[in-house]
Amino acid sequence: MTKIVVALGGNAILAREPSAQAQRKAVKAAIKELVNFIKNGDQLIITHGNGPQVGNLLLQQMAADSKENPEMPLDTCGAMTQGSIGYWLQNAMKEELLDNGINKDVISVITQTNVDENDPAFLNPSKPIGPFYKENEVTAVMVQHPNWKLVEDAGRGYRRVVPSPKPLEINEYHAIRKIVDAGIIPIVSGGGGIPVIRKGNQLIGTEAVIDKDFSASKIAQLIGADKLIILTSVGGVFYNYGKANQQELKEVSVDEIQMHIDADEFAKGSMMPKVEAAVDFVRKTGNPSVIGALEDVQDIIKGTGGTTILKQSMKV
Amino acid sequence: MTKIVVALGGNAILAREPSAQAQRKAVKAAIKELVNFIKNGDQLIITHGNGPQVGNLLLQQMAADSKENPEMPLDTCGAMTQGSIGYWLQNAMKEELLDNGINKDVISVITQTNVDENDPAFLNPSKPIGPFYKENEVTAVMVQHPNWKLVEDAGRGYRRVVPSPKPLEINEYHAIRKIVDAGIIPIVSGGGGIPVIRKGNQLIGTEAVIDKDFSASKIAQLIGADKLIILTSVGGVFYNYGKANQQELKEVSVDEIQMHIDADEFAKGSMMPKVEAAVDFVRKTGNPSVIGALEDVQDIIKGTGGTTILKQSMKV
Repeated sequence: MTKIVVALGGNAILAREPSAQAQRKAVKAAIKELVNFIKNGDQLIITHGNGPQVGNLLLQQMAADSKENPEMPLDTCGAMTQGSIGYWLQNAMKEELLDNGINKDVISVITQTNVDENDPAFLNPSKPIGPFYKENEVTAVMVQHPNWKLVEDAGRGYRRVVPSPKPLEINEYHAIRKIVDAGIIPIVSGGGGIPVIRKGNQLIGTEAVIDKDFSASKIAQLIGADKLIILTSVGGVFYNYGKANQQELKEVSVDEIQMHIDADEFAKGSMMPKVEAAVDFVRKTGNPSVIGALEDVQDIIKGTGGTTILKQSMKV
Repeated sequence: MTKIVVALGGNAILAREPSAQAQRKAVKAAIKELVNFIKNGDQLIITHGNGPQVGNLLLQQMAADSKENPEMPLDTCGAMTQGSIGYWLQNAMKEELLDNGINKDVISVITQTNVDENDPAFLNPSKPIGPFYKENEVTAVMVQHPNWKLVEDAGRGYRRVVPSPKPLEINEYHAIRKIVDAGIIPIVSGGGGIPVIRKGNQLIGTEAVIDKDFSASKIAQLIGADKLIILTSVGGVFYNYGKANQQELKEVSVDEIQMHIDADEFAKGSMMPKVEAAVDFVRKTGNPSVIGALEDVQDIIKGTGGTTILKQSMKV
């Protein structure tokens, strides 16, 4: 049985329409694809993003902020989106499994991800979250939130940026491994996991966001996954993406793609972290990783879809 | 090893101060008590309420409600509080365990609770949730939410009421049982679980709240718990509570306490559901249930604290 960690983008759930109904419809469509892994006999571990959802939640928190009902910090908001998206995913997955005559348990596990307090990301917060502010609002926002860093965002206004440190460890990985061994499909590390910093026995929640693909790579390593699959909206990894000479990769070795990472050829905050996360998994485990489109899952299972990154390319 | 389901009130977490910091401090204090079960060698399954937390979340959702950021329905909000409170509990529990030199896994599991669409509670919504409205606001609220039922709440204004159906089944119990068998401490059924109604293979989230003590009783039955402990703010069950002739019960048989239930002697929405939930567990399993105060956990473990409800009283 192949143990596969699948990472699902937050945008696969909230692309345009933010109502619960619309998001659950998108979740159902995504799950219909993912169930193909179970039908294929694979053991699945699902992780997911939460960018659009936590953004909306932060807006709601701020709108009602008062002494009686203070806004919750980013770590707690992240935990909330693990709850809501996890619920939607496990609910849809269970139904789709039963529709296919498969009786398997599915649960969402609230997950904390360790980060290093000395991670350079803390010196350079760069991940935009929450609402846009007009220039004349900036002073008031900074008075209310003296610890925030605001940056101008591509002419659309000012926006808070938070650090995006690398995951050191997935705190619940030991339990997650047992859950997988028990034949349960777990949904883990939602939104990359709740970022925490270890101080002795304490895990302290921190105002940061963790890239969900890096967390997926980490959990895949920690539970001994045979494959890491990162699902996105494009069909695979391209060299010279969007240019006349763009070239889609079917299969590539870590050493080859590393050269293109080093040459900074992939889009920051988009394809670059996916490729880096996949490469890290392949290097540490020797097992393959695939980057591809959600709608190509059946081809990915057949081995014909997406871009496969291998320790050593099979190509002669 | 004694398998114990412990139900913790939502008010044990948010009594007065609603900030994340204050709630987490309360969570830590509660966990310090609960860890005594682990030190005693018991296997623990934790459930918790979410009343104050989901109330505040609903207010936040409504404050920001817009086409771009619509409020989430009650089932999804319940899932969110399972995420946030679950995070706080598992974070505090892990730290307290390590402080005591115990290395055990703790995870929160997003939990859906089946209810019967024909439950009479759906004909008589009675559980108040969310904000109070002034009399002159009622019409506007009803236009915005035509399906809501509002009732006048003890002179404090008008408030939405939702059904509080009985739990039929805890959907994730099979996985939870495996998790307990694997030696993991699970936090489950937060807020009584997300209420869902089964339609074929589908579980449809519904606008209702489930009493967390009834859900605790149900999960305790489904996973074969040896004991159900319901922790609250009073030291135990009293006959004639608050009167001159009040009498605290140390030990009572289900048959005896059933007579006092039938005579409607316990406070509705407070001690009554706790006693009913405990009695149901004792009747179905033959195992004992204890109702007592959080701060008396050490005495409850020794067998001297709280009120123990037994299949048959040991008293001669």
